[in-house]
Amino acid sequence: MGLKNIRVVLVHPLYASNVGAVCRAMKNMGLGDLALVAPRADARSADARMWACHAANILNQRHEFPTLAAAVADCGLVAGTTARPGLYRGHIRTPREWAPRLLAAARTGRVALVFGPEDTGLTNDEIALCTQLIRIPSSPRYASLNLSHAAMVVCYELYAATHRFRLPPERTPEAPGGMREQMFRMWRQALLDIGFMEEPKADHMMLGLRRIFSRGPLSENDVRILIGIARQTQWCAGEMRRRGGTLPPAKN
Amino acid sequence: MGLKNIRVVLVHPLYASNVGAVCRAMKNMGLGDLALVAPRADARSADARMWACHAANILNQRHEFPTLAAAVADCGLVAGTTARPGLYRGHIRTPREWAPRLLAAARTGRVALVFGPEDTGLTNDEIALCTQLIRIPSSPRYASLNLSHAAMVVCYELYAATHRFRLPPERTPEAPGGMREQMFRMWRQALLDIGFMEEPKADHMMLGLRRIFSRGPLSENDVRILIGIARQTQWCAGEMRRRGGTLPPAKN
Repeated sequence: MGLKNIRVVLVHPLYASNVGAVCRAMKNMGLGDLALVAPRADARSADARMWACHAANILNQRHEFPTLAAAVADCGLVAGTTARPGLYRGHIRTPREWAPRLLAAARTGRVALVFGPEDTGLTNDEIALCTQLIRIPSSPRYASLNLSHAAMVVCYELYAATHRFRLPPERTPEAPGGMREQMFRMWRQALLDIGFMEEPKADHMMLGLRRIFSRGPLSENDVRILIGIARQTQWCAGEMRRRGGTLPPAKN
Repeated sequence: MGLKNIRVVLVHPLYASNVGAVCRAMKNMGLGDLALVAPRADARSADARMWACHAANILNQRHEFPTLAAAVADCGLVAGTTARPGLYRGHIRTPREWAPRLLAAARTGRVALVFGPEDTGLTNDEIALCTQLIRIPSSPRYASLNLSHAAMVVCYELYAATHRFRLPPERTPEAPGGMREQMFRMWRQALLDIGFMEEPKADHMMLGLRRIFSRGPLSENDVRILIGIARQTQWCAGEMRRRGGTLPPAKN
């Protein structure tokens, strides 16, 4: 599987908190291989461990390299992130655009995701080592993301591109039409019974209700709840009448 | 425009660093309206300001509310994030799935993105106030994202859904076929001139080169560079011959 062949490379990271937070982001997104290039931050500090949270294993298993070239020497594709436009930074794409290509390459070889230092970003010499350039979409009013946020977005796009994530299967299957119509008949009767509307206007009012209940999915369970409300309303109106109650003049 | 109608609501945030980092993520993604519900973190602390970086304006303009209900009282859609599956958390979707719906609603009214506390997440009572539930895709081995990372991903998906972000227009237009063929003719001749190949095998070798140069886009500028290399190679080989040099036996 591709994700385990993907290495996150932080070049000269400055803050231990960011190094730790990147570990957490990686583990959240199914990655595990962290490389630091001549870090200025102390990856053994309490701050790094605190921000790594339950991803201390990634922090502990990190590898450190003196240069970016050494850190990516065994990587096929090398994708560098940059927010700076400039010469030779032309073939740049969003992480969503590159993700399928990077994942495909990671199925047969190692792939590096390279992030520059917090204060300067990647230099032109470092950019030259990259086969792919990534630009995260961001507002022109403040384009530069926090280091761990940038790593989060890129790792997230790779994880999403695996299409491995499935939401819990509670996705409501729509209730069948017959059940829905039974519900509308019962609501119609209930609304007549409580005097919310009178027969001449009933069909018109029901169109409004149909619109309301058609705006989103309605599962069988939803419809059972709505049928229960109508049934209880009818019972209540009948009981009221049996006890000598009468309806006020209808409003609708 | 929709983004300015989107409010990020942090419920009882615990760490000032996270509150600050959320401000930065918001500004990176074109958002500006931050609400805190009975925060445990001190949003006026140096930590919050440091992590907000150039988004101190969002931090300063935050609003604080005693309850989530108060913070979202003027919001149409209220989207809550949760990593916990559970009863009544069924209609949950990924941020990418919800983004178009949330953006559409934000064009005509206010929309809230609600994030729970770092230590507990949103309670069932808070979930009940939400019209939409969001689950960020994440690894089952470590599903829970850092608060500001979660905000980053959701804000990023909303910004991406605006389709407002355009990469710099350096996107290489492909060089026209005629220019490409001129280049291949010149490379063919250059490779013969330097003795890299001999005529009987030349067409076969050129197929390999054609494959290599067809694996990605080739802009006019790329082709001009390649033509320049071939021209200079031909010149160099001619000069070598004019000075009495001879080729070694061809390898190909």
